[in-house]
Amino acid sequence: MRSNSVAGHRILLAHGSGGSLTHDLIAQLFIKHFTHPALLRLDDAAVLAMQDEARIAFTTDSYVVSPIFFPGGDIGKLAVCGTVNDLAMVGAKPLYLSAGFIIEEGFPMVDLERIVASMSAMSREAGVAIVAGDTKVVNHGSADKLFINTAGIGLLPAGLEISGNRARPGDVVIVSGTLGDHGIAIMSQREGLAFSSTLESDCAPLNGLVAEMLAAGEIHALRDPTRGGLATTLNELARQSCVGIEIEEARLPIRQAVHGVCEMLGLDPLYVANEGKLVAVVAPEQAESIAQVMRAHRYGRDTAIIGRVVESHPARVVMRTLLGTSRIVDMLAGEQLPRIC
Amino acid sequence: MRSNSVAGHRILLAHGSGGSLTHDLIAQLFIKHFTHPALLRLDDAAVLAMQDEARIAFTTDSYVVSPIFFPGGDIGKLAVCGTVNDLAMVGAKPLYLSAGFIIEEGFPMVDLERIVASMSAMSREAGVAIVAGDTKVVNHGSADKLFINTAGIGLLPAGLEISGNRARPGDVVIVSGTLGDHGIAIMSQREGLAFSSTLESDCAPLNGLVAEMLAAGEIHALRDPTRGGLATTLNELARQSCVGIEIEEARLPIRQAVHGVCEMLGLDPLYVANEGKLVAVVAPEQAESIAQVMRAHRYGRDTAIIGRVVESHPARVVMRTLLGTSRIVDMLAGEQLPRIC
Repeated sequence: MRSNSVAGHRILLAHGSGGSLTHDLIAQLFIKHFTHPALLRLDDAAVLAMQDEARIAFTTDSYVVSPIFFPGGDIGKLAVCGTVNDLAMVGAKPLYLSAGFIIEEGFPMVDLERIVASMSAMSREAGVAIVAGDTKVVNHGSADKLFINTAGIGLLPAGLEISGNRARPGDVVIVSGTLGDHGIAIMSQREGLAFSSTLESDCAPLNGLVAEMLAAGEIHALRDPTRGGLATTLNELARQSCVGIEIEEARLPIRQAVHGVCEMLGLDPLYVANEGKLVAVVAPEQAESIAQVMRAHRYGRDTAIIGRVVESHPARVVMRTLLGTSRIVDMLAGEQLPRIC
Repeated sequence: MRSNSVAGHRILLAHGSGGSLTHDLIAQLFIKHFTHPALLRLDDAAVLAMQDEARIAFTTDSYVVSPIFFPGGDIGKLAVCGTVNDLAMVGAKPLYLSAGFIIEEGFPMVDLERIVASMSAMSREAGVAIVAGDTKVVNHGSADKLFINTAGIGLLPAGLEISGNRARPGDVVIVSGTLGDHGIAIMSQREGLAFSSTLESDCAPLNGLVAEMLAAGEIHALRDPTRGGLATTLNELARQSCVGIEIEEARLPIRQAVHGVCEMLGLDPLYVANEGKLVAVVAPEQAESIAQVMRAHRYGRDTAIIGRVVESHPARVVMRTLLGTSRIVDMLAGEQLPRIC
C-alpha cells in the first residue's frame, strides 16, 4: 500500500475485521499519515499529557453491528460498553463520552428512543456521562439503519502504566470469562438459529472489574478481545511486547452452545468477538490473587488462567491443544463475521 | 415525541438538517435521556471539569458529505476543520482529535489515502494531533462510500467563559466572511452547475483566528454557522441567551455567484451551510477593534459587522431588508441540502 501501489486496490470487508488486514491498513496507511506517538503505541486508548501532571486517555469506536437489537443488548449498549472498555484497558477511569449518530432516513423513532435509553442506562451503570453529541441523517439506502460513534475520555491515575508493550516473560495470561459469546449470539440471531436461543451477548462495561484488579495486584497489559477475538488480541500483545505467548486449549472457557454453533458454521471460537471480556497479562506472583478478585466480580465469574508469556518464539502465540500437540495461533486473516460490532 | 407518542414516527432527512427538527429531536429525545449539564448547554463543545482547576472542551461530529471530494476540500479536511472549529467556538485551544472511519466495501484505497493525507495536512495546519482511530467496513450498499467521525479535545484557558447563553443587549454581531460558500460549492458540484466553477468551499480551521480575537477584546459568544446556516445559528444564540437579534441585509457579505446559484435553486443563502466562518457576539466598545483583527487574518478578510443584540423580541431574529422593511428570520424548517457536511 505504498503510495505507488494503492492504485487499483479497494477496501475489503477484511480491512474492518480487526485481523491482519486491519493491521496492514493501520500500519501502511493510517500511521504513514497520522504520526503522533500516542497513536503509534496502538493501545486501545491514547494516553495524553494535559497541563501539569494530569494525563487523560482518549479513544473512539464506531459501531455498525447488524442486527441492531440482539440477545443481550443493542447497538447503543455496545457503543457505551465498547468505549468504556477501551478506556479501562489502559487503566483509565472513564469519565465522559460523546455520541455521534448516523441515521438512515425512515428509521423508526421508537427504535431510536429504545437505543438512546439503553445508552443512558449503560452509561449510568458504568459511571460515565454522555456530554457531547451529533446527529446526521442520510437518504434511504445510503446507510443501513443506524451507525453510532462513541469517543471517550478517561482520567489516568498518576504513575500507572498499562500497555500492550509491557508483557514480560514469566507473566501470566488471564481471561475474564467465556469466549465468543457476543459473536455467536449475533450470528445465531442473524442466521435464525433457534436452538441457540439461550446464547446472549456478553456486552458489559468492564471498568468496575478493572478497578478491582488494579487494587489487587500488578497488571502489565489489558485488552478486550473484540473483533478478531482472543487469538488476534494475544497476537497483538505478543507483537507489541516482542514476547511469545503460550496458552492451553484445555483451560479456555468456552460455552458448549458456542462450541456447537461454531462447529456448525465452521468458525473457530478463538477468533470470535467478545464485548464483555478482557485479557490481562499480570505479574506471576499475583496472578492467583488477581484471578480470585476477578471471579468475585459479576463480570468475571468464569475467569481462567489460560497461559503465560515466554521468551521463545517472540511475536508468536502457540497453543497446546487438547491432543497434546502444539500449534501456532495466528492473527485473524480475512473476515469471519462482518458487522459484528 | 414523548414516549407515548413516538410510535409510528420515523426519522426524516430534516432531523439531520441542523434546523428546527434537529432541535426538536435533541430537546425531546436526546436530552430526555442524556442529562449531563455540559450537554444541556447546547454549545458546540462540552466544557468539562477535570482534576484540579483544569477544564477541557470535548466535541464530536460525523461527516457524511456527498460528494466526498468537492471544490475547496474533501470529507477529511471537513472532518478535521469542523471539529477543530467546534472546540474553538467555546474558546478552547484544540489539542487532540480522534478519527472513526465507516467505509463501504469496495471503496478505492487511493481515495482513502487522499482523504487521510488531507486530514493529516489539515491537522498540521490547525496544530492538533490525531491520536486515536477506528475503522469499520460495511458490505457494499450498507453505507454510501465513506463516513468519518471526529471527536476532539481542547484545553480551556482559566477564567474564559464563551457560551451561546452569554449574548447581552447592546452586544455587536460580527460574521467572519462571506456566507453560503460551502453549501453552494457542494450543491454546484452535485448538480453539475459548470458556470459556478469558481465557487469553492470555505472549509478552514478557525482556531488561529479565534486566538487572535480573544487577544483583541471581550467575546461573549462564538458559533460556526454550519448546517442550517447563519439564520439557524443566530436563532440558537437568541434562544440560548433569551435576547433578540437584529441584522441588516445590506451588511451581509454574500458572493455574487452564491446569490446566483441560490436564486436558480430556490435557496436562501441565510440557511446555507458554511464550514470556515464564525459568528461572534462581542462587547460593543471593542467590536471595531475585534473586526479589524479579524480582517487582518487570512480566514477573516471579509469580516462584517452585521447587527446587534437587543432586548426586544427575545428569542427572535429580525432582519432589516434591502427594501427597508423588517422580517422575522426563523430557524431552518425542513431540510434544504441533505448531506452538506
